[in-house]
Amino acid sequence: MSVQKTLKELAELTGTELIGSPDIIISGVKALNSAGPEAISFLADKKKIPQLAATQAGAVVISPDISYDRPRLLSRRPYQDFIKIVDVFAPSLPWPEPGIHNQAVVSPGAKLGKNVTVGPFCVVGAGAELGEGTRLAAQVFVGENTVIGRDCQIFPGVVLRERISLGDRVIIHPGAVVGADGFGFLPEGERYTKIPQIGTVVIEDEVEIGANVTIDRAALGETRIGRGSKLDNLIMIAHNVVIGPDTVMAGQCGISGSTRLGKHVMVGGQAGTGGHLEIGDGAILGGQSGVMNNVKAGEFVSGYPAQAHPKAMRQLGEIARLPKLRKKVRELEARLQRLESK
Amino acid sequence: MSVQKTLKELAELTGTELIGSPDIIISGVKALNSAGPEAISFLADKKKIPQLAATQAGAVVISPDISYDRPRLLSRRPYQDFIKIVDVFAPSLPWPEPGIHNQAVVSPGAKLGKNVTVGPFCVVGAGAELGEGTRLAAQVFVGENTVIGRDCQIFPGVVLRERISLGDRVIIHPGAVVGADGFGFLPEGERYTKIPQIGTVVIEDEVEIGANVTIDRAALGETRIGRGSKLDNLIMIAHNVVIGPDTVMAGQCGISGSTRLGKHVMVGGQAGTGGHLEIGDGAILGGQSGVMNNVKAGEFVSGYPAQAHPKAMRQLGEIARLPKLRKKVRELEARLQRLESK
Amino acid sequence: MSVQKTLKELAELTGTELIGSPDIIISGVKALNSAGPEAISFLADKKKIPQLAATQAGAVVISPDISYDRPRLLSRRPYQDFIKIVDVFAPSLPWPEPGIHNQAVVSPGAKLGKNVTVGPFCVVGAGAELGEGTRLAAQVFVGENTVIGRDCQIFPGVVLRERISLGDRVIIHPGAVVGADGFGFLPEGERYTKIPQIGTVVIEDEVEIGANVTIDRAALGETRIGRGSKLDNLIMIAHNVVIGPDTVMAGQCGISGSTRLGKHVMVGGQAGTGGHLEIGDGAILGGQSGVMNNVKAGEFVSGYPAQAHPKAMRQLGEIARLPKLRKKVRELEARLQRLESK
Repeated sequence: MSVQKTLKELAELTGTELIGSPDIIISGVKALNSAGPEAISFLADKKKIPQLAATQAGAVVISPDISYDRPRLLSRRPYQDFIKIVDVFAPSLPWPEPGIHNQAVVSPGAKLGKNVTVGPFCVVGAGAELGEGTRLAAQVFVGENTVIGRDCQIFPGVVLRERISLGDRVIIHPGAVVGADGFGFLPEGERYTKIPQIGTVVIEDEVEIGANVTIDRAALGETRIGRGSKLDNLIMIAHNVVIGPDTVMAGQCGISGSTRLGKHVMVGGQAGTGGHLEIGDGAILGGQSGVMNNVKAGEFVSGYPAQAHPKAMRQLGEIARLPKLRKKVRELEARLQRLESK
Repeated sequence: MSVQKTLKELAELTGTELIGSPDIIISGVKALNSAGPEAISFLADKKKIPQLAATQAGAVVISPDISYDRPRLLSRRPYQDFIKIVDVFAPSLPWPEPGIHNQAVVSPGAKLGKNVTVGPFCVVGAGAELGEGTRLAAQVFVGENTVIGRDCQIFPGVVLRERISLGDRVIIHPGAVVGADGFGFLPEGERYTKIPQIGTVVIEDEVEIGANVTIDRAALGETRIGRGSKLDNLIMIAHNVVIGPDTVMAGQCGISGSTRLGKHVMVGGQAGTGGHLEIGDGAILGGQSGVMNNVKAGEFVSGYPAQAHPKAMRQLGEIARLPKLRKKVRELEARLQRLESK
Repeated sequence: MSVQKTLKELAELTGTELIGSPDIIISGVKALNSAGPEAISFLADKKKIPQLAATQAGAVVISPDISYDRPRLLSRRPYQDFIKIVDVFAPSLPWPEPGIHNQAVVSPGAKLGKNVTVGPFCVVGAGAELGEGTRLAAQVFVGENTVIGRDCQIFPGVVLRERISLGDRVIIHPGAVVGADGFGFLPEGERYTKIPQIGTVVIEDEVEIGANVTIDRAALGETRIGRGSKLDNLIMIAHNVVIGPDTVMAGQCGISGSTRLGKHVMVGGQAGTGGHLEIGDGAILGGQSGVMNNVKAGEFVSGYPAQAHPKAMRQLGEIARLPKLRKKVRELEARLQRLESK
């Protein structure tokens, strides 16, 4: 991190108002409670206001509404402006230089765009395509006829099976598996016969997929992850699921076969859905919720089985008040008994 | 997918009755709502009857009980017969040709059967055995003295540690790990001492294991997955677990140490069990259930903590009616007060 | 397993009292119900006393309080002493000999200590450091400037991204991913902008990490796993989480961003926590619990949403008694009606 900027340069970069000396030298980004005088920090969450007094930060990106008298950049969107600064100081990702590593196995039948990187121990099958600027870090598997767009970043140990499709600027973190067979079996007496899974997976532009996620290929047709959707780690997407654009899914959630999520849905950690459901645009599935029915657009559901969140909260309240209710019933019985005995 | 068949040929293949022109050319398989005239489709789920009117499918495999007047194959088991047709049109899996890739590391002490495939960047340890026709796709690790039967399909990135055993026709999807150390520690004051995990894992014939599943080796003895059992993705099987034959387990479920599942059990997605339990033959563990006690053969349990499913359903009903019960108690109190004040 | 020991030698090794012939030859360790005369077994769990009568074990490590008249080693801590014996008979892990495999890619800028093992198809980036005696099995990825201490065991398929740090004697099981980007996005209208994740992960000494676990790097600062903590398989640790020393976490649990666990915490299987929480020293999070608030030191919480375990148990009891309560209310109403009609 040898990059150095003056506070003035950072104010210009972010279009913020500088209060304090423009010549302060900043060489890094840190949280309020760990920043020293060489670092710039930020305050976006009001809960952290108490940290302001003690911070050693050389400067802080902060809302003009908040009282702070040391060097600062005034911003209405301090987190967004701070991120622009983070980008300046971020260590560059250690991607190998473009080119095919001499210990990679790339089929002569694969089509590689300009400035493609194929790291050591990668395998790229016949008919596969890698768009311009796409990078396979190391130990990545790209199956036959799988098509990857431009400027994708595929981290070590990712497996993309045959005949799947990725858009542009897709990021896939280590160990994720795209295109494994869907889980489909027909009972024959007590035994199970495998239903061939011959469909595909389509990952649209700007999707980000977390470490060790699994996205299964469709039985027929396709499994699809919509543009700009973001998946955290260890998520399970079953065959024929369709996820709309701009949906965010927290770690360890699972979506069962053929369920469709709309756009801009939020799925909490460890939530699960049944199969063949419709989850509307903008819906929210609470953490650990067990969703067994369709969810309307904009609806927030939680609990097991999942229901409208306010109703689920009221039920939890009712349950908490059960001891009181029971006591009241005992009391009524005693009063009734007194009346009866008169 | 350049395979083409006449409808007559498909009727003969499936032993179904053809209604319509026997010369119709079929070149693919699709779902009802996406099939064009070149594709054959099927109707197995009555919920999809409304899709029949609009389908463009060249032909449909369908029960004679359902009214449909375009070209069709009449079948009492339309899904099963359709699957036979899917097999005809399925793109062949792009397995490498038999042989050892020149960038694989196979110990001279390993024993390889006829027609074995070892793809690029695979490692096969000393004393390991691969049965006839078994295929390791790429980047697979087979530890020392691990024995794999015939005609197994091991997908990229699978890790099979040392001294484990796989039967015949086993399928293991990408990223699965078989034979990692079980999770066993002895407390010594506040610290933990590792209990050596020197047992093994036995995977019987025709088991299918999903992507990124983990099956731990036993402390002593063995962890065992019974013949024909099917495991979906991201499942955790702890040390010394025994799973009977023909059991199906949905994604992200977890079985704790030394628990035994019988044959033909069904485990729902994200369900979990405690350790040292007995789950009887044919039992069903509902999705997200938390199973803390033994489950009898044939019993269906759900909820947390899991109990008999009908009882769990009744409890949910009771909880839903709590506001009414509370209202009733208030009403009784008012009536009682009126009586008391007389 | 060609090691052979006399019972006398095992008594000396463990410092236990031998009852029976000192010359009995022992060549393995087994559970009571599977041991033959060549094996030594142990009894630590009183539930297994019924297995004593039928065991064929050549000898048993057993408490002097338990009546057993065949060859035995008397121990107040039979499990601990048995483990010492397991170590004697444990097959050695088939680690490759120290050295760099000729099919590994090690950057000339990496620093390797004495007796380091780098197995086939491993990648070690520039500036990375491997301490003395550390072993990378095969197909392991070590990113640039990642520093690994001494005597670590890194199993096949593990991905350690750039700029992270591991202490000494760390064990990481196959497929685990350390240092993937944290899940951080800023909403911009309906779209999401990636928040650069430029922090690190610190894994302290003697930590053990299970198969296919994911531990994300911090946004800023660090994610930290404390000395001696043990993580089972398929666990998700989000960015900026701090886990104290000697904490044990069961399979498939997940800890959300910036949550801090104290020392000697126990986390049950499939449990999940919200973000930005404080979980005190010695706390216990029950299996499948959904923890949405801070947990005090020593507190045991369970259920969803998690609350003090005794309270959660009482609530379950209240719910189970709801049918009775409802019946009682109906009965009171009838009695009231009778009074009213007088």
